Amino acid sequence: MELLTHKSAGSPQIIGLRDPAALTTSLGWFVKTGSRDETVEVAGVSHFLEHMVFKGTPRRSAEDVNRELDFLGAQSNAFTSEESTVFYASVLPEYQDQCLDLLSDLMQPSLREGEFETERQVILEEIAMYDDQPPYGAFEIALEHFFGAHPLSLRVLGTTESVSDLTLDQMKQYHTARYSTENMYLVASGNVDFDRMVEQAVSLSASWPKSEASRKFSKPRMHFGEMTITREDTQQYYGISVWPGVDCNDPQRYALRLLCTILADDSGSRLFWELVDTGRAETVTIWPQVFDECGCLLGYMCCAPEDARDNNKTINRVIQQLLQEGVTERELELACNKITSSLVLSDERPSSRLFAVGQSWLCRQHYEPLDVVLSRYESVTCDEILQSAQKTLGQSNFQIRIVGENGSAGTS
Amino acid sequence: MELLTHKSAGSPQIIGLRDPAALTTSLGWFVKTGSRDETVEVAGVSHFLEHMVFKGTPRRSAEDVNRELDFLGAQSNAFTSEESTVFYASVLPEYQDQCLDLLSDLMQPSLREGEFETERQVILEEIAMYDDQPPYGAFEIALEHFFGAHPLSLRVLGTTESVSDLTLDQMKQYHTARYSTENMYLVASGNVDFDRMVEQAVSLSASWPKSEASRKFSKPRMHFGEMTITREDTQQYYGISVWPGVDCNDPQRYALRLLCTILADDSGSRLFWELVDTGRAETVTIWPQVFDECGCLLGYMCCAPEDARDNNKTINRVIQQLLQEGVTERELELACNKITSSLVLSDERPSSRLFAVGQSWLCRQHYEPLDVVLSRYESVTCDEILQSAQKTLGQSNFQIRIVGENGSAGTS
Repeated sequence: MELLTHKSAGSPQIIGLRDPAALTTSLGWFVKTGSRDETVEVAGVSHFLEHMVFKGTPRRSAEDVNRELDFLGAQSNAFTSEESTVFYASVLPEYQDQCLDLLSDLMQPSLREGEFETERQVILEEIAMYDDQPPYGAFEIALEHFFGAHPLSLRVLGTTESVSDLTLDQMKQYHTARYSTENMYLVASGNVDFDRMVEQAVSLSASWPKSEASRKFSKPRMHFGEMTITREDTQQYYGISVWPGVDCNDPQRYALRLLCTILADDSGSRLFWELVDTGRAETVTIWPQVFDECGCLLGYMCCAPEDARDNNKTINRVIQQLLQEGVTERELELACNKITSSLVLSDERPSSRLFAVGQSWLCRQHYEPLDVVLSRYESVTCDEILQSAQKTLGQSNFQIRIVGENGSAGTS
Repeated sequence: MELLTHKSAGSPQIIGLRDPAALTTSLGWFVKTGSRDETVEVAGVSHFLEHMVFKGTPRRSAEDVNRELDFLGAQSNAFTSEESTVFYASVLPEYQDQCLDLLSDLMQPSLREGEFETERQVILEEIAMYDDQPPYGAFEIALEHFFGAHPLSLRVLGTTESVSDLTLDQMKQYHTARYSTENMYLVASGNVDFDRMVEQAVSLSASWPKSEASRKFSKPRMHFGEMTITREDTQQYYGISVWPGVDCNDPQRYALRLLCTILADDSGSRLFWELVDTGRAETVTIWPQVFDECGCLLGYMCCAPEDARDNNKTINRVIQQLLQEGVTERELELACNKITSSLVLSDERPSSRLFAVGQSWLCRQHYEPLDVVLSRYESVTCDEILQSAQKTLGQSNFQIRIVGENGSAGTS
């Protein structure tokens, strides 16, 4: 495995993790833009734009795009998060050039009025469907309150209002500002011809916007408290908690993931044995969400309404005990083994390595190879886990509970 | 990549596809038994037994099994089909011995009364849930009618009646007869120490049942016709068709998969462009189901009730046209590219190769390496595709349609 990089003036940063023994090539454009780079007025534009990218370019109709992806036998997709918009495909090595040509063409879509209106309806339906499914957008509501005026409070899908009001001009302005060569990474992994890729990508991106696209940083003021939402159609109790966390470059991020694995992994954790294995709750998990320059811990519980009160007491007791006594060497060994095994297993495919490289570059402009990541986990001590617990679970939090119509679930 | 095999008297066949460069080891027990090896009275016993396997052995309680899988960081699971029951796990190479010890122990479970009754309820709920979801068990109903008295008509989950009536003794008899060393394959792929695995597996399986466990073959008499099922709670129209197919060793199986890809793949196929891309149907697919010594083609369409009649006409027209005119060289090239790309992509992980080896061995007692499979697809001609179409889609079929309460959907 060989890491190769290229950056020339006016062209995007290009990164390749070459494995000449691989039988496939994975390619991806990682755009450093997402809902946190939006304003309330245009909330959802990153995600809407991700959809529009497949609706045609000056060189290809939407149908051409579909047919060509299909011809390449490409396993391709795209997603938008708070901080990134990613387009990727995996193909046989002989289709590297054609796949790169297609993916790169998509980065400068036509953004035509007709498709814009059609796609707006698709996204409004997506928002409605999402709000219809448990836990009914409760994570988004919790983050809205927790992050307050900070842009991380914005929803990735936007709101019915913001998507309804968005104009094509606003999307075009956003695209020009954010899909610039200075704000995009081209990543390849697997059996890739790196020199040919660089030559082709530099040429394809020659006419793209070149402006600097910075991300606004501000220390979020976190908000604590609790709220109850009543929905007549829900049978189950859903509880969500948000605690302060760490950012994506914080050295404590390894300890924090170990902590969450020991405390509230979906199998074999303290809360799993207390509540899920005993049948008292359907799901209990807590996991870290790391962002650029800040982060949080998200907790989720789903159970029968009549068990909610006791379960919440149990969760508090288990957390308080951990904050007092810390974790054992044996628990640390088990959690470390679970995390490292799962990292090794997921690192086997070029397509998975693509995301590891791309996300690492978006976050810290360099790549942390697997063996380095594994050694970071292996060097974490029980003391460090306790410190990371005090810094997060030991702080105030924001809680939201979704209950059925009689409202008795969370408070009985 | 190196294929290694071992068979000694009284011990199971052992197969390893060794890749010393892999970072993980995948292990699996492939038992050549499934719903087609049952009788009507014990229908569902294979699947029920698969559940019971995780409920404890003479050496381990159910909780021990959970904790140990968790400790190994194993990505593990099990499934039951018409013809096989499979248990597998992927671990770091240093846990090969422990993982093999655990998986092998599971193959001779305790089958205790208490767990049997608890698990019976879980499975009855699973059956009820399955019948509650569209298309409401319609595939199973269609195969029941199509295969008639042949055991391939039996449902993998069994029926509420057969599972309610099953006794622990019947399960124990089934287990002794089917989980014998002569009817099980141990498969490993990835970074495996084959010699150590053989030594350990031979020792662990020394006391297992050794009887020959044959599969009863009889040429199925296929049944054609159509039926309509009315369900008050359905909003959509669901149509299922079954045509004669080919068995898992038929040389035409490559042509048949290419045919289905050209005609009715879920992207970029003739029926996709006619019905799905145009928004007239939500899903239209046709795919081959290959079994030991026989097979079928399954078709599925889901759409709004008011579109069902026209859509069915379109499907018939597109099939008749293909039977008349065959496919084009260009379509064959595209379909071949899609299939081979997807095979290469899925062959990248040791855990995926485990299934390729295991399924191939269950079917034909040898392994067809990826490059052989690819060359089989690449050598198929347009003429062969037309022949395979005439042998399947050109024959009579069995059709079932699920419609809403007014009953007008399929017949208006």
